[in-house]
Amino acid sequence: MNIAEEREAEDKRWMQRAVSLGYRGWGTTSPNPPVGAVIVKGGCVLGEGFHERAGEPHAERRALADARARGHASELRGATIYVTLEPCSSYGRTPPCTDAILESGIARVVYGAQDPDPRHQGRADGLLRAAGIDVSAGVEQGACKQLLRPWIYATLHRRPWVLAKVACTLDGSMARKYTRWVSSPEALAYAHECRLRSDAILVGGQTVRSDDPSLTIRQPLSAIPEKKRQPWRIVLTRDPHSLPPTAKVFTDAYAERTLVYSNVANLPDLLAELYSQYGIITLMLECGGHLLRSFLEEHLVNEWVQDIAPILAGNGQPMLPGGYLPGEAHLEISEMQQCGVDRILRGMIRYS
Amino acid sequence: MNIAEEREAEDKRWMQRAVSLGYRGWGTTSPNPPVGAVIVKGGCVLGEGFHERAGEPHAERRALADARARGHASELRGATIYVTLEPCSSYGRTPPCTDAILESGIARVVYGAQDPDPRHQGRADGLLRAAGIDVSAGVEQGACKQLLRPWIYATLHRRPWVLAKVACTLDGSMARKYTRWVSSPEALAYAHECRLRSDAILVGGQTVRSDDPSLTIRQPLSAIPEKKRQPWRIVLTRDPHSLPPTAKVFTDAYAERTLVYSNVANLPDLLAELYSQYGIITLMLECGGHLLRSFLEEHLVNEWVQDIAPILAGNGQPMLPGGYLPGEAHLEISEMQQCGVDRILRGMIRYS
Repeated sequence: MNIAEEREAEDKRWMQRAVSLGYRGWGTTSPNPPVGAVIVKGGCVLGEGFHERAGEPHAERRALADARARGHASELRGATIYVTLEPCSSYGRTPPCTDAILESGIARVVYGAQDPDPRHQGRADGLLRAAGIDVSAGVEQGACKQLLRPWIYATLHRRPWVLAKVACTLDGSMARKYTRWVSSPEALAYAHECRLRSDAILVGGQTVRSDDPSLTIRQPLSAIPEKKRQPWRIVLTRDPHSLPPTAKVFTDAYAERTLVYSNVANLPDLLAELYSQYGIITLMLECGGHLLRSFLEEHLVNEWVQDIAPILAGNGQPMLPGGYLPGEAHLEISEMQQCGVDRILRGMIRYS
Repeated sequence: MNIAEEREAEDKRWMQRAVSLGYRGWGTTSPNPPVGAVIVKGGCVLGEGFHERAGEPHAERRALADARARGHASELRGATIYVTLEPCSSYGRTPPCTDAILESGIARVVYGAQDPDPRHQGRADGLLRAAGIDVSAGVEQGACKQLLRPWIYATLHRRPWVLAKVACTLDGSMARKYTRWVSSPEALAYAHECRLRSDAILVGGQTVRSDDPSLTIRQPLSAIPEKKRQPWRIVLTRDPHSLPPTAKVFTDAYAERTLVYSNVANLPDLLAELYSQYGIITLMLECGGHLLRSFLEEHLVNEWVQDIAPILAGNGQPMLPGGYLPGEAHLEISEMQQCGVDRILRGMIRYS
């Protein structure tokens, strides 16, 4: 390897570290993106950090604070910072990270994904270069974009990324005769892990009436981060008076996190409202077949998680009632795993 | 390892070889079982063979003939024969293998599975021991029984082992709007491989009317053995006059292999007839949901292969029409694999 190749390999390695730091904030940062940052000098980490919650410091400032707390303040001059997303250059709830970087004496900035917002895209890059900083963009861009995918989508489309989660039997039944549960306990834990990464969970009134679900995160596969709030519970109904006031979503400790929408005529408008008013970036659907079908028909489902229980139940209802979809939805399976006796298929949805 | 352990390990190794030889006859031997045999002396193979087709020599006689053809006739005295199933001891279409073993001078017989037929079980074992042969039974019994599973089942229950094969979309549709095909080409090849291992394929009249399938083996994953006959095509219908006489199953080169049954009142009786009259050991179902449901309701499906195409089609029909099954059927998944974009789940069915 020559020097350029060595530097490239090193850049990739540190960016991978920044990506894994970023994932530690996955699910708690909305409406902000999950971002990770590492400051490196002479092959050693001076400091690292990730963005944890909106209103709190960004990953770059957390990494700088970490370096200072570790006693490396004087070594920052000439160091390199690796950050998964182009640093911010404007005042939000916190001052711009470009300022903090310039003040610190850092000599090189390596970032993964560009800011998707056309108003900001490339601005920090330009500012930093103008100040004489060595800037490298697009390092491990694929991994960075994967971490940022829901946020990039929401930023560009002004509505949440939608993950549909379905549990069914081999014959496509979403219900069984003698038990409410289709999923194995291990698959339930996987579903709670999905909730952990979501800002809101949407169901129909029928689900509230028949299942009375909590829609809270109780037993995910990983630990619940301290700063994670229980997700918003969104209930869509034709008649709000049909919802039992004693339902868990109205009476539990998170009752103020339940939103009821009645007679929603336009799903994209609803999603736009959830994004702009509540900062919801990732919305998880746990609704029944009718509502799921409506989201699919409008091409609003981005990602799909299907838990298949190895049972033939024959409940007589198709998963998506109403006949052939106008266009088919294709699942690009990126994950297939066993959870207890169940099998989970997960991937992105492509419409034809 | 002491001497006993060494002998045990060696026995297992040779029996595994016999099992893989047995698989070479898998799908061509009905109504006989697939059996493999290896004759060994001093750690060297003298001869080996497998049963290929009913009426032709059994595996033991093939292995003896192979040893003689290789010029090892004089070395047979004192040798060991490994055979996956207890040798036969009675006259069928060929003379008993126990005679051939005794005549050859073989000193030790190691077999895997016992003959499941209570009239023959243990008989060869006793005959051989009485003649002074060293007999070991039950070596690699699990692997031998797996190879023999359909045959053991058919022998004990006097009806075929039933493999149901289903192709569906993620939402349980067995049909799509704009194309007849649910499966990927790779999953179709897998289905043809299942046909290769079956003696007969069963469909309903509706499938013949709407799909006009050939139900022949055309493009399996492995080569079609020279001695494999095209499977029987069994058509169940309420009214034989409703079947188009121009359908492929009535007009192709294998038309004499098509059997039509009308107004079948009792599926177990039909299966008993297929077994006793046509020697059908393995029956593959490629029927629609109604007929499939009838087989499941009577607990007649033993094995299940489900090809899941990663598509949401919404055809509006449940896979198993008619409402909840009286008892659920559980799939004990032993195989999960990718075939093109599709995923295949396979295993045994357990009823609750």
